[in-house]
Amino acid sequence: MALCGGVGGAKLAQGLAMALGPGELSVVVNTGDDFRHLGLYVAPDLDSVMYALAGLSDPVRGWGRREETWTFMAALTALGGEDWFQLGDADLAVHVERSWRLAAGATLSEVTAHLCARLGIGVQVLPMSDDPVRTRVHTDEGWLDFQEYFVRRQCRPVVREIRFEGAERARASQAVVAALADGALRAVVVCPSNPFVSIEPILAVSGIAEALRHSAAPIVGVTPIIGGRAVKGPAAKMLAEMGLPVSGEAVARRYAGLLDGFVLDAADALPAGVMGDTTGTADGVGAAHAAGSAGAPPRFCRAATLMVTSDDRLRLAREVLGFADGLPRGRRRA
Amino acid sequence: MALCGGVGGAKLAQGLAMALGPGELSVVVNTGDDFRHLGLYVAPDLDSVMYALAGLSDPVRGWGRREETWTFMAALTALGGEDWFQLGDADLAVHVERSWRLAAGATLSEVTAHLCARLGIGVQVLPMSDDPVRTRVHTDEGWLDFQEYFVRRQCRPVVREIRFEGAERARASQAVVAALADGALRAVVVCPSNPFVSIEPILAVSGIAEALRHSAAPIVGVTPIIGGRAVKGPAAKMLAEMGLPVSGEAVARRYAGLLDGFVLDAADALPAGVMGDTTGTADGVGAAHAAGSAGAPPRFCRAATLMVTSDDRLRLAREVLGFADGLPRGRRRA
Repeated sequence: MALCGGVGGAKLAQGLAMALGPGELSVVVNTGDDFRHLGLYVAPDLDSVMYALAGLSDPVRGWGRREETWTFMAALTALGGEDWFQLGDADLAVHVERSWRLAAGATLSEVTAHLCARLGIGVQVLPMSDDPVRTRVHTDEGWLDFQEYFVRRQCRPVVREIRFEGAERARASQAVVAALADGALRAVVVCPSNPFVSIEPILAVSGIAEALRHSAAPIVGVTPIIGGRAVKGPAAKMLAEMGLPVSGEAVARRYAGLLDGFVLDAADALPAGVMGDTTGTADGVGAAHAAGSAGAPPRFCRAATLMVTSDDRLRLAREVLGFADGLPRGRRRA
Repeated sequence: MALCGGVGGAKLAQGLAMALGPGELSVVVNTGDDFRHLGLYVAPDLDSVMYALAGLSDPVRGWGRREETWTFMAALTALGGEDWFQLGDADLAVHVERSWRLAAGATLSEVTAHLCARLGIGVQVLPMSDDPVRTRVHTDEGWLDFQEYFVRRQCRPVVREIRFEGAERARASQAVVAALADGALRAVVVCPSNPFVSIEPILAVSGIAEALRHSAAPIVGVTPIIGGRAVKGPAAKMLAEMGLPVSGEAVARRYAGLLDGFVLDAADALPAGVMGDTTGTADGVGAAHAAGSAGAPPRFCRAATLMVTSDDRLRLAREVLGFADGLPRGRRRA
């Protein structure tokens, strides 16, 4: 199982899909970014994951679909419509199809399963919840909806606090809870997504963190920070604005008590006191802090985490799985 | 003022817009074809009229927008979506913008005025009503929604009866009623649209036929039938299936009691007993049946009614206006 947000996390999910057999992978996706736009239900992270898994992602732009056209947006602008959020013509088909199916009474999980089947995706893509959770960002400009902060204001405001409205009332996806309770689950991979706005909304959904704590599978995170910078998005900026070090280790600390292992980038140093890893190999496990007892800090290893090519994704996925396979199962978590 | 449906009527509306000064023309548009598709509110006749007036119509395809792209439709088909109704990418911007504005509480008239303003249309485009009226067609395959009959079944079923659901409860556009009550109104032109499914839904809306009957302006129809055939659409097929002659005269009879004048095509003969017109000139008025008294049949004239070029539209519009100007005002109608 993988937990992920959008683009960066979706790349590793794609690698895991290539590394594993059909039906072996489920991906739990953040829906805290979802919003209503022009009357349509837009789910940016679900779309990024679906496009990555279907091989439809645009490799140059870094978001949206390849071979996309923009006739709709040009016509919308001519009509004076709200054009701050870019909707490609092909992308729009997903929003329209999803929106009317939701309006007709289907759940987000059902619609996602339908769309994935039509796109030939052999991976189970699971929205974290069918209930609305909305990520809101408290900034020096006040409270902003996530897309307002992320797209309209291009992450410029300084972040003070993040909330996931509805997360406590939202029911966890039962498919997620069931998969985590499966004693045969090989591993849970926390993808290299933004901890604050991609992974933590998933953990905030009532029941998901608890199911993770009770899972027998090892839980392994992968750093979204390389050399003090995020590959994409505001993760580094947010860490700094929260007064935290801009490092993979700081991200690992966000998931304290939950992780069994964490993959840092090969370019970065191991945390102080952790030694003996073998960079870039599956069994390169940090020696220290890995007692296997409840609340113990995770083991660390290092790998080349930048995923540019499809081969990069497959290689990293294999290393992460190998790392997870070497960790103890059935660990008690804080 | 012009009453019209989609493509054919929209061409004359465009000609009238060219012939008249800014603010002199209002166009009352059939909304009986409107329907919900993929959760969107689609108003085919309003769109045809707007595109014609904005110079955006596709001249080759005969419907929709010029320089259109079809990426959305291809992606929708790949998702297994309902793809029997063609939605171009630019066209979709109108449906999306209109739909969310309606959902936010605006009336169809308000949204139409907004869209027209943005498209630089100087003509007042008036939906016949802000309330839902749905044209349904009773065929040898049973009752069909209009778009089911028109697009999905490509007008193949034999038509027995047509109903305008909601027309009695629907309130007439107040702008339409007010314009008709204006003693200075120059003329009402019933455009060369399908009488059964474009004009009669307008007349069926409670209050519109009455406002027409009391209007001081002459009411002039233009034939949608040339040489026993419709230029576009099922008007000829419907006339035949209703057991009526396929002629402009038969169309004029549909509007019996309402019309002061009717423009036949130059290729067609005047009705029996009508003589003396001068083909293609504004004052070519048929001599017979034109007593000006209540319930009298309309005067006829003939003109070249096929509109291929922009010049054709302007020329026909001028002839129709000239014809109307020569008719008596303030006629009492049956």
